[in-house]
Amino acid sequence: MSGPGEDELIETLRRLLAAEAPGVRLGPGDDAALVEVGDRLAILTVDMLVEGVDFELGTAAARDIGYKAVNASVSDVAAMGGSPRFCLVALGLPRSVERGWVVELHGGMREAAGEHAVAIVGGDLSRADRVVLAVTITGEAPAGGAVLRSGAKPGDRVVVTGSLGAAAGGLRLLEAGPEAVAAARADGWGRDLLEAQFRPVARVGEGQSLARAGATAMIDVSDGLSLDLWRLCRASGVGAAVTLSRVPLAPALGPLSRVVEVDPLALAVGGGEDFELVATLPPGAVEAAARSLAERFGTQLTDIGEVRKGTGLVSVSEDGTERPMEPEGWDHLG
Amino acid sequence: MSGPGEDELIETLRRLLAAEAPGVRLGPGDDAALVEVGDRLAILTVDMLVEGVDFELGTAAARDIGYKAVNASVSDVAAMGGSPRFCLVALGLPRSVERGWVVELHGGMREAAGEHAVAIVGGDLSRADRVVLAVTITGEAPAGGAVLRSGAKPGDRVVVTGSLGAAAGGLRLLEAGPEAVAAARADGWGRDLLEAQFRPVARVGEGQSLARAGATAMIDVSDGLSLDLWRLCRASGVGAAVTLSRVPLAPALGPLSRVVEVDPLALAVGGGEDFELVATLPPGAVEAAARSLAERFGTQLTDIGEVRKGTGLVSVSEDGTERPMEPEGWDHLG
Repeated sequence: MSGPGEDELIETLRRLLAAEAPGVRLGPGDDAALVEVGDRLAILTVDMLVEGVDFELGTAAARDIGYKAVNASVSDVAAMGGSPRFCLVALGLPRSVERGWVVELHGGMREAAGEHAVAIVGGDLSRADRVVLAVTITGEAPAGGAVLRSGAKPGDRVVVTGSLGAAAGGLRLLEAGPEAVAAARADGWGRDLLEAQFRPVARVGEGQSLARAGATAMIDVSDGLSLDLWRLCRASGVGAAVTLSRVPLAPALGPLSRVVEVDPLALAVGGGEDFELVATLPPGAVEAAARSLAERFGTQLTDIGEVRKGTGLVSVSEDGTERPMEPEGWDHLG
Repeated sequence: MSGPGEDELIETLRRLLAAEAPGVRLGPGDDAALVEVGDRLAILTVDMLVEGVDFELGTAAARDIGYKAVNASVSDVAAMGGSPRFCLVALGLPRSVERGWVVELHGGMREAAGEHAVAIVGGDLSRADRVVLAVTITGEAPAGGAVLRSGAKPGDRVVVTGSLGAAAGGLRLLEAGPEAVAAARADGWGRDLLEAQFRPVARVGEGQSLARAGATAMIDVSDGLSLDLWRLCRASGVGAAVTLSRVPLAPALGPLSRVVEVDPLALAVGGGEDFELVATLPPGAVEAAARSLAERFGTQLTDIGEVRKGTGLVSVSEDGTERPMEPEGWDHLG
């Protein structure tokens, strides 16, 4: 984990590419792009996963790698309140990978696609030194308009779906070695952490509900709460205050912290790959949104802070002390 | 170069993925997928390029790699007679690659995108051991319907745009070493070969013209004439006879064959990356199609043979002798 260094290079490249062009409603820089297709707005996004960076063949099963790859891209569509529809998969394969592994990988992709009613319609195979996957998803924007990163307004509440830190906790558990994993797997909390790490599920329905509830901005927590919320705030030209005691910690982080030396709050704030959604809502819209998510999906929605004028993040501790909060999380070029 | 081994694994994976799903008009297996977006038909395709497999950092300039990557994906849209519209780029980068290289790569992508009126609307950056690029293109199907690989009928003529073998010739020239390259570059033919290898241009306008002219099937020559025509025939459930003396050899292959030991016809039939289009047309439609391509684009269209009942390819030599023609070309998993 490191800072937002990736964002600077991305910003440079964005300026190179972001020509205003016919049919482009939203170019690079948000969770996904928005383009006109006839009288519809389509959502376009791609995510790359690389062996040794995003997953290890020694610890992740082929099926889980495929499952997670599709969910990671679907999550970008969810973060706009959209509906994922079609999927393309580009796959680089080393010679050492066996046919059965490739078939399992595709089984996992198909499983994830099926759960989100996404059709995998094409792809490309190439030889590569290590396994590399690029998953493209196209989707439909919600009828009321896509929820961008850039609409947050001072006074809005900051809300987050589900709980945070489990995916990063699962990684820490894996790093503790096979014995710790085996012991933890015997308990429910261990399974929860590994499930969060290997088989995350994008919050598609929740994103659509938050869009209908009037979310002013939204992003998925792919790289870490503080880094992703910082990106949302930067895009909106605002700041935010996060009340640390309200950040919903994944329940399994408690038992994990008794086995491995981890700070549950640090994992929840700086750990990536939770694929929960962070949104901003007008204060009056939070209660109805929370009720809707609980009733329809059994998903908790937690108010963790407020949008403020200015820039950057501050954390608010229980005694009301405010401190600058550094945007920490997964840097893809770190 | 090797046989069509890649196609077998792809066939297995296709069966795993090709669920019939709402909105999918054409799933995996053609040049690109066709999906419904509202009342429009969208074309979706992705191509992956890997350092050490598809290009070498030592011989290809960053700008040319970007330019070629975009053209390779656009070519799949051209092969359906469609119009490319939007582009996503997923990029894996080793630490050793400098910022300036990445900026040049994007400059090349933008140049190619601009020439085809394509907007690059998003992407993803990841760390990787070697440079890897996955370029997704979405496009619009032609009003009269996309030209698939599967519509060729016995009696149709087989036509090809431009000339073949220059990209493969460029590769042979590079393999001959820097002195041969420098000498050849001083002559026009050397520049032609290197241009074909490093800066191929997808035949978008030609593909649209061939669609309007009544092409029954079409594919782009990305892996080699014989392999790609074999794929077209297999998809159509037909065979084809290719008159070898009619295959349009790239003019630069003549001078190349006096410097490097190459067989121009073998390069034209088995060499990949020409990104010319091979189409099948009813006999009565060839002349008008050829005139249209010559007048509008200055592009030659050559009748190289006929579609027959049965399966597989045969070559026809000048004395009329027919021999089975093995589908040879670039195998991505070879």
